[in-house]
Amino acid sequence: MYERKRTRQIHIGPVAIGGGAPVSVQSMTNTKTTDTEATVAQIKALAAAGCDIVRLAVPDMAAARNLGNIIRQSPVPLVADIHFDYKLALEAIEQGIAALRLNPGNIGGEEKVRAVVEAAKAKGLPIRIGVNAGSLDKKILADHGGQVTPDGLVESALQHVRILEQAGFYDMKISLKAHDVPMTLAAYRLMSEKVDYPLHLGITEAGTPHTGIIKSAVGIGALLAEGIGDTLRISLTGDPVVEVRVANEILKALGLKEYGPTLVACPTCGRTCIDLPAIAAQVEKKLEGMTEPIEVAVMGCVVNGPGEARGADVGIAGGHGEGLVFRKGEIIRKVPEDRLVPELFKEIDAIIAERKKQ
Amino acid sequence: MYERKRTRQIHIGPVAIGGGAPVSVQSMTNTKTTDTEATVAQIKALAAAGCDIVRLAVPDMAAARNLGNIIRQSPVPLVADIHFDYKLALEAIEQGIAALRLNPGNIGGEEKVRAVVEAAKAKGLPIRIGVNAGSLDKKILADHGGQVTPDGLVESALQHVRILEQAGFYDMKISLKAHDVPMTLAAYRLMSEKVDYPLHLGITEAGTPHTGIIKSAVGIGALLAEGIGDTLRISLTGDPVVEVRVANEILKALGLKEYGPTLVACPTCGRTCIDLPAIAAQVEKKLEGMTEPIEVAVMGCVVNGPGEARGADVGIAGGHGEGLVFRKGEIIRKVPEDRLVPELFKEIDAIIAERKKQ
Repeated sequence: MYERKRTRQIHIGPVAIGGGAPVSVQSMTNTKTTDTEATVAQIKALAAAGCDIVRLAVPDMAAARNLGNIIRQSPVPLVADIHFDYKLALEAIEQGIAALRLNPGNIGGEEKVRAVVEAAKAKGLPIRIGVNAGSLDKKILADHGGQVTPDGLVESALQHVRILEQAGFYDMKISLKAHDVPMTLAAYRLMSEKVDYPLHLGITEAGTPHTGIIKSAVGIGALLAEGIGDTLRISLTGDPVVEVRVANEILKALGLKEYGPTLVACPTCGRTCIDLPAIAAQVEKKLEGMTEPIEVAVMGCVVNGPGEARGADVGIAGGHGEGLVFRKGEIIRKVPEDRLVPELFKEIDAIIAERKKQ
Repeated sequence: MYERKRTRQIHIGPVAIGGGAPVSVQSMTNTKTTDTEATVAQIKALAAAGCDIVRLAVPDMAAARNLGNIIRQSPVPLVADIHFDYKLALEAIEQGIAALRLNPGNIGGEEKVRAVVEAAKAKGLPIRIGVNAGSLDKKILADHGGQVTPDGLVESALQHVRILEQAGFYDMKISLKAHDVPMTLAAYRLMSEKVDYPLHLGITEAGTPHTGIIKSAVGIGALLAEGIGDTLRISLTGDPVVEVRVANEILKALGLKEYGPTLVACPTCGRTCIDLPAIAAQVEKKLEGMTEPIEVAVMGCVVNGPGEARGADVGIAGGHGEGLVFRKGEIIRKVPEDRLVPELFKEIDAIIAERKKQ
């Protein structure tokens, strides 16, 4: 339905990014990186929720020196988030990190950049250049009238890109984060025209899940729907496992990933005769944790339900005290209302069993 | 940041749609339209949440005849949702409805279309043509290999459009709903190239709020970010007031509407020294119901917080046992950690008071 923009491909551990690879999901731990147990536990929870790559803050040498202990226990490749100090980058590489997030213009000059680049090259590690609207270079801010602009964000990122390119390093991806969605859209659209490096999407400081989920889905969804973006991280305040669920739901909505069951439910109207919200909630609860991609419909009316949900693998439609079970729009049987949910799951089990036989 | 596609303008009561008018928010009651009290109560709750236009199911003549009782008590213009029976449309118009949702190809021929068109014209009422992937015309389905396709959705809608145009009626808007996001995007993009009638956006049967919010934000957000769409309805299972909140949050994220306070919160990382999720949740709770558009930041660290949130009207940043209160990135004062939230709200009150004086 939409063409993905072609980018060059990089690899973070075994995960390919760009160049036609599936859009990967990232998150970041919010534990102390010196706390091996807590950090490994969070990484495992993120991986189990469908996270492909995890980033860790490396604010000091103690954190950098602990990376190896974490890496050895991690089921997914890890990225070290480094600011200003190139020695932290060298230590992270030494410890076996799979990638760096580091802005080469901020680490103290050409010699230090060259040291990091040589070490990264020797192990084939990519670097993410990550520009943030909140910490935009002061000179660039001044050049754009003291305002953060999409042009300024892109210009700042390109300065860092050129530093790596001049050091003969091309194994990179770029992020341009702001918490303002229109700013983010404009910046990524512009960058996508200028370079073919893979783009790492994100809306920074999106807020609490209550509103941040909507903001992230709008901004990141819009870019993906234009074919822009090769990997993404949703930033939300709180448990990062929620970020991973939201990221995967965005990809699933756009048909970019298969991710567990899909529940289709009609919004109910004056024609509805059953307690649809209660039944839908019950079905959703029972589907939780199921990994099989299956489309399940819960419809309010027997007249339109089966036809309207003919795309669903299986569904139920409610009537007066009784309802229908259907598969791909074909009615399978009529059952009393209180049997609708159990009969639906009997059918789901049957479909999964049939698929396994094939 | 993005150009809105120019469409012709229509009016539903006092609400302009298309032609540069603000994108309006719609919802639909799920009460019985014959139950005046319940329906009016729900319309009022929707309007209070920021809904501009409300649609009601009109499944029979009893519902149509009750519309006047509801219209007289409604703070927003109402739309009658009618299928197949043109007499219901005539009665709704007689009762004073502000618009119709009706597919003219399904009401039984030219004469009946002409009767509805004449009555609508006489009162200056617009008609929404609403095509739904689930109930696509059988001939069109067959012409497209038995599959619902974006082309098929557009073709079906254009057949209805032509019927109205042939009757000399141009006061219409169009919707093309599916629960599949890529299908929806492709259909609206195509329609937007073909006509200049305003487009009514929706993802139908998006499901329960848990996943339906993400799906809707992705699909509708992506279209709006391309400049497509003049009015929208979010469909979720459950209380339609949630639909209205989500619709407004989508518009707000894209800078298309000012809608209450914006909370910016950093996602926390290994550098965070305060219980940021708890503080953010507390601030969010206290901001609830506030209508003033004000941007409030809750940041985890005193070093980067004020600078990163310089776009915020006011914010707090946490440190070791104490924190900062800042306005537009300028630090106002240092306070103990347990005073951060009260001091933040003192500052919010001060800003609102200053604005009122201006």
